[in-house]
Amino acid sequence: MSVSAAEAFEKIARGTEEILLADELKDKLASGKSLIIKAGFDPTAPDLHLGHTVLINKLRVFQDLGHQVVFLIGDFTGMIGDPTGKNVTRKPLSREDVLANAETYKEQVFKILDPAKTLIRFNSEWMNDLGAAGMIKLASRQTVARMLERDDFKKRYAAEQPIAIHEFLYPLVQGWDSVALKADIELGGTDQRFNLLMGRELQKDEGQCPQTVIMMPLLEGLDGVQKMSKSLGNYIGITDPANEMFGKIMSISDDLMWRYYELLSFRPMDEVNQFKQAVAEGANPRDYKVLLAKEIIARFHDEDAATAAEQDFIQRFSKNAIPDEMPEYTIATENGELPIGHVLREAELVSSTSEAMRMIKQGGVKIDGEKVVDTKLVCNAGTTAVYQVGKRKFARITLN
Amino acid sequence: MSVSAAEAFEKIARGTEEILLADELKDKLASGKSLIIKAGFDPTAPDLHLGHTVLINKLRVFQDLGHQVVFLIGDFTGMIGDPTGKNVTRKPLSREDVLANAETYKEQVFKILDPAKTLIRFNSEWMNDLGAAGMIKLASRQTVARMLERDDFKKRYAAEQPIAIHEFLYPLVQGWDSVALKADIELGGTDQRFNLLMGRELQKDEGQCPQTVIMMPLLEGLDGVQKMSKSLGNYIGITDPANEMFGKIMSISDDLMWRYYELLSFRPMDEVNQFKQAVAEGANPRDYKVLLAKEIIARFHDEDAATAAEQDFIQRFSKNAIPDEMPEYTIATENGELPIGHVLREAELVSSTSEAMRMIKQGGVKIDGEKVVDTKLVCNAGTTAVYQVGKRKFARITLN
Repeated sequence: MSVSAAEAFEKIARGTEEILLADELKDKLASGKSLIIKAGFDPTAPDLHLGHTVLINKLRVFQDLGHQVVFLIGDFTGMIGDPTGKNVTRKPLSREDVLANAETYKEQVFKILDPAKTLIRFNSEWMNDLGAAGMIKLASRQTVARMLERDDFKKRYAAEQPIAIHEFLYPLVQGWDSVALKADIELGGTDQRFNLLMGRELQKDEGQCPQTVIMMPLLEGLDGVQKMSKSLGNYIGITDPANEMFGKIMSISDDLMWRYYELLSFRPMDEVNQFKQAVAEGANPRDYKVLLAKEIIARFHDEDAATAAEQDFIQRFSKNAIPDEMPEYTIATENGELPIGHVLREAELVSSTSEAMRMIKQGGVKIDGEKVVDTKLVCNAGTTAVYQVGKRKFARITLN
Repeated sequence: MSVSAAEAFEKIARGTEEILLADELKDKLASGKSLIIKAGFDPTAPDLHLGHTVLINKLRVFQDLGHQVVFLIGDFTGMIGDPTGKNVTRKPLSREDVLANAETYKEQVFKILDPAKTLIRFNSEWMNDLGAAGMIKLASRQTVARMLERDDFKKRYAAEQPIAIHEFLYPLVQGWDSVALKADIELGGTDQRFNLLMGRELQKDEGQCPQTVIMMPLLEGLDGVQKMSKSLGNYIGITDPANEMFGKIMSISDDLMWRYYELLSFRPMDEVNQFKQAVAEGANPRDYKVLLAKEIIARFHDEDAATAAEQDFIQRFSKNAIPDEMPEYTIATENGELPIGHVLREAELVSSTSEAMRMIKQGGVKIDGEKVVDTKLVCNAGTTAVYQVGKRKFARITLN
């Protein structure tokens, strides 16, 4: 490794929400050993967006520092499905499903991770061997009271909402995975706090050095407010076409751009801070959005695609002289949708919906530079885009 | 079967604490089918006393009515041991331990049960196959709130005493045993109520007809107050020598004799009621104690041993003209023990411990007809015996 332990710590700490315990992590990094870095993933069909990559990027940082990443697919519980049978969308996965999904994962995550430094493991390897007796022993490690301290369980119990007993077993399974892998570090979202700490406890019981827990924040979506998610529509999928990625990134606010730089870019923070400084001194933030967009597109497509997307964007937008600054609106939809006419009127781009209809028919309305042809177009919540009416009226509108 | 369903029901209901549900049981008996009767036993080394036989006697009643008894040895949980490791007396049993204990069980219970109508099963047969995944599915069948309704769990949770999560799994294992065996009826102690009902629930979930639950009372020990138990010393072991059994049964109170008749004798209740009637009209209860003692000795030894024990008893006691009626005392021991001198003084058989010592040295003190030779003899709590000083002073003394 060419970096000092202190530098390594700084790279790892970047953008994290919490590290338990930071001093412990420093010691592990200072030991010079190749550490085992665990991250668990659902075995259901993966269709990753940039929100998911926050954690995967951190795994890549560990790889670049010479550590061993274990990409753990939680197929054991996935093959159980929803044992209550209430959740039809959580049907048990077959062995074939699991393997097919693992291939899809690989295709996607190897855009970020180094395959040579990534072990793909399945927790069925050790959980199937554990047996019913092993499961009972595992269950003996924790008390009911301790489980009921977990935030969501506590709330549900207090509200007299049923908690099935197997729900108490899942955190133990996750913790046992850490024992089986002898994980030095586990990465997870902040919502995984309790389960991540379970690994520490079980490892201690087994005489292992407890894993350090690193929690990553949930990435905000394009609206800059709610977490990025498929169901909210405010996401950039990692298989999205390059042009779409470019346009989406160009649509985000300047504040969100810096957040994305911290969590999604591999540029050193020193460089990012220089960009910030430049903008503070009058540089155009749009130029840095372009840099960010190109870095991300290069990662998931390639350099050529990034360049082409930029050219395409310039052609479509710059020609149309989209101003750098424009009014910004956040407009509430009705049940997630709002007709184009209403959107334009709310943003004061037109004075009435009938004016909006007329402008559309004349070809004078554009969204992100693309002409609107359908007067009945319905716009969706969770999107942010530049709306244009005629030559000079612009607004950046977020629908929620 | 030569008996009607109504007669069968009456034989089964005799001495039971509770039947859930009685109407259901009547229907099952009326169906004319051979029913599967389940009773579960600990896989630890069995050393049965008459208290245990209350339930086994009921199994015999079912056998005599033509039903199939499954004597279930809970070796699965026994092979786990105490998973918390806190209870050193509950070490995991090996396969060999389990089989050796099963042989000991057979030797003992086949004094009561008909081997041809008894299936010995081990729950490891199906529990080992269940696997960790099956255990999780099983755990999904019940809620945490429902488990915390169980009396002992409720108390411990309220008192903030730890409940390990695996303790929630054991009732489910017991219930699953009923599913695996397709039990029509399960017998157990009243302390097993919750676990017995779990079987009903799981069977319903599996589309089986739920088992009828028959709860037997805990048998009172020789003192007539506390439940019969090894640790209290108030028991008759089924491997006790015939003479000892005879003496112990002759020492019990008349009230307790009727209780024992109900729960330990296979004489029809009509006959037992005739005995009661006779005593009420002046017959000597001692004669019926002799009948009871001989029935029980014949069961665990043989008819000859029963006759010999009676003869021996008559020789020792009747010669010494032990009166039918004598003062009865219950004396508190100190930490479970009391020196003979104190016992005799408390029961007013002597006026001082020094008188007691003198009488012992002269050979004038007997316990259950046996001469006391040791002036330092210490008597144990949980025993009831006839103490005699000289020719005419007698007292029936219970120590607790």
